[in-house]
Amino acid sequence: MSSPVYPKMAVIGCGLIGASVILAARASGAVTHVAVADASPAARERVTALGFADLVTADPAEAVKDADLVVFAVPVMAMGEAARAAAPALKTGATVTDVGSVKAAVAEALIEALPKSCFVIPGHPIAGTEQSGPDAGFAELFQNRWVILTPQARDDEPYLDAVQRLRDFWTALGAQVELMDDKHHDLVLAVTSHLPHLIAYTIVGAAADLEGVTRGEVMKYSAGGFRDFTRIAASDPTMWRDVFLSNKDAVLEILGRFTEDLQAMSRAIRWGEGDKLYEHFSRTREIRRGIIAAGQESPEPNFGRDHRPVLEAGDTPDTKAQ
Amino acid sequence: MSSPVYPKMAVIGCGLIGASVILAARASGAVTHVAVADASPAARERVTALGFADLVTADPAEAVKDADLVVFAVPVMAMGEAARAAAPALKTGATVTDVGSVKAAVAEALIEALPKSCFVIPGHPIAGTEQSGPDAGFAELFQNRWVILTPQARDDEPYLDAVQRLRDFWTALGAQVELMDDKHHDLVLAVTSHLPHLIAYTIVGAAADLEGVTRGEVMKYSAGGFRDFTRIAASDPTMWRDVFLSNKDAVLEILGRFTEDLQAMSRAIRWGEGDKLYEHFSRTREIRRGIIAAGQESPEPNFGRDHRPVLEAGDTPDTKAQ
Repeated sequence: MSSPVYPKMAVIGCGLIGASVILAARASGAVTHVAVADASPAARERVTALGFADLVTADPAEAVKDADLVVFAVPVMAMGEAARAAAPALKTGATVTDVGSVKAAVAEALIEALPKSCFVIPGHPIAGTEQSGPDAGFAELFQNRWVILTPQARDDEPYLDAVQRLRDFWTALGAQVELMDDKHHDLVLAVTSHLPHLIAYTIVGAAADLEGVTRGEVMKYSAGGFRDFTRIAASDPTMWRDVFLSNKDAVLEILGRFTEDLQAMSRAIRWGEGDKLYEHFSRTREIRRGIIAAGQESPEPNFGRDHRPVLEAGDTPDTKAQ
Repeated sequence: MSSPVYPKMAVIGCGLIGASVILAARASGAVTHVAVADASPAARERVTALGFADLVTADPAEAVKDADLVVFAVPVMAMGEAARAAAPALKTGATVTDVGSVKAAVAEALIEALPKSCFVIPGHPIAGTEQSGPDAGFAELFQNRWVILTPQARDDEPYLDAVQRLRDFWTALGAQVELMDDKHHDLVLAVTSHLPHLIAYTIVGAAADLEGVTRGEVMKYSAGGFRDFTRIAASDPTMWRDVFLSNKDAVLEILGRFTEDLQAMSRAIRWGEGDKLYEHFSRTREIRRGIIAAGQESPEPNFGRDHRPVLEAGDTPDTKAQ
């Protein structure tokens, strides 16, 4: 294994993403020493039990001491406070990044809180599951996923070197890296992540509380499509509250566009405009094909969940066709 | 294998569901002889090549001759015409059912088109994938899924016997059967299937055609949640056009409720009401847990699609942990 990209890494906040960064970085040899800070006693206890950190503490300042890379992996609106707590102990020349789903607000909070002597490079891995907490982490989470970095508008050599090194780090973890302006990131992610979560939370909440249809019926007959929405509606509530509050403008803009289109669909149904519905429904298949071709989705029907080969001991995938 | 539930079955329309009914019925021994009618030459060619039917024809009347069970598996608004074509050849005492996603409109069309000498029992298996056509069918599709039958308001012995026999048929195919009033079915499915499809088609359509964000970006960063919606938005356009046109009232009612809730969410974001968002986001996890407990969803993160064990030849699932 080649030499580590960063000998010492500190991860502040060890949920699904923080734990996955650690597991992936360790598995790839990208880091040697890992310190974790987490405000939750329960999370610290789990991290200690899982044994993937060299140091586990409640204090961000203790964790970041001597770290070459600091990864803030707390909810978006907790970034500023965590950064202020870590700031006095940061090593000169350390790289500081984060994994928050919103970038402009986080960049502002980090840059304000942290000394000029470190390199702040905000980031966002487009990867995750609906589960939360350190036990939900796994080393393969970033394989073939995209990580967006939103570097500051600086072109001094040391900063550019720091950006390149952070790219190397994520590449070692299996990800593909893209650089982007933070405001553009926030608009793109409002489309591909924030609005989908808002819609899913809304439809699942509405279905749970209807006149005339029971919760039991909603659950029993959910294989008609509804169950798909429950996955992302099971995501961490604190994380998502913070995303909507700190990317308000882009989310409301994209939501406005969606609402217009939904009203047009509603009108087409009300007036029996079959051709308009057919034309719309015919265009959307292509997008899924593109996502599968881009390696971002399983090609199997139903995401593969109902359709898996039933293997018995002694069978190999080659001897039992799916 | 015990004796067949229906010696001769005719399937009118052989797409994903029609083909799966045939494969599941054959695998379970629930039928002996299968005739298929399909209006599409391409579908007939595939059914012939796949070899799972004893007779393949364009003519519904030819297919239903001597059949004990006739299953209409065409798009909802094509049911009436298919039934009229089959009617003159139907055997006295045959059971006629369908697999349409809307029940009140289909019941009306079938009962109007068919002779009183057969038993019309509308039905709807809550199962499917985003794929279409006879090649997409598979025998396990109905395992542990629900089938809703919406019998007519008749209590004569021969009809009740016919309903029981159709229950036995679906049970043999691995499904669980529930009886329901057709109007109630249409309301329940508007919640668990029709609205989710409408929302998914709308969000995927909107994202494909935005100012400021390219299609390429939408595809690349779709793992943030958007890709989930593309699965059901890849469903058959004809089928879904017909569903919305023939279940208009229930869909618009449920859409109205969803839109109200979405406006409340939008307002909470605009005014920064974090507590309201948090409270809403905390309630929806429970619904997913209920669906998993009811056996209607995979408990694995991300539906298991990114997280599957990589098996090599010679490994068994017992020797390689996920």
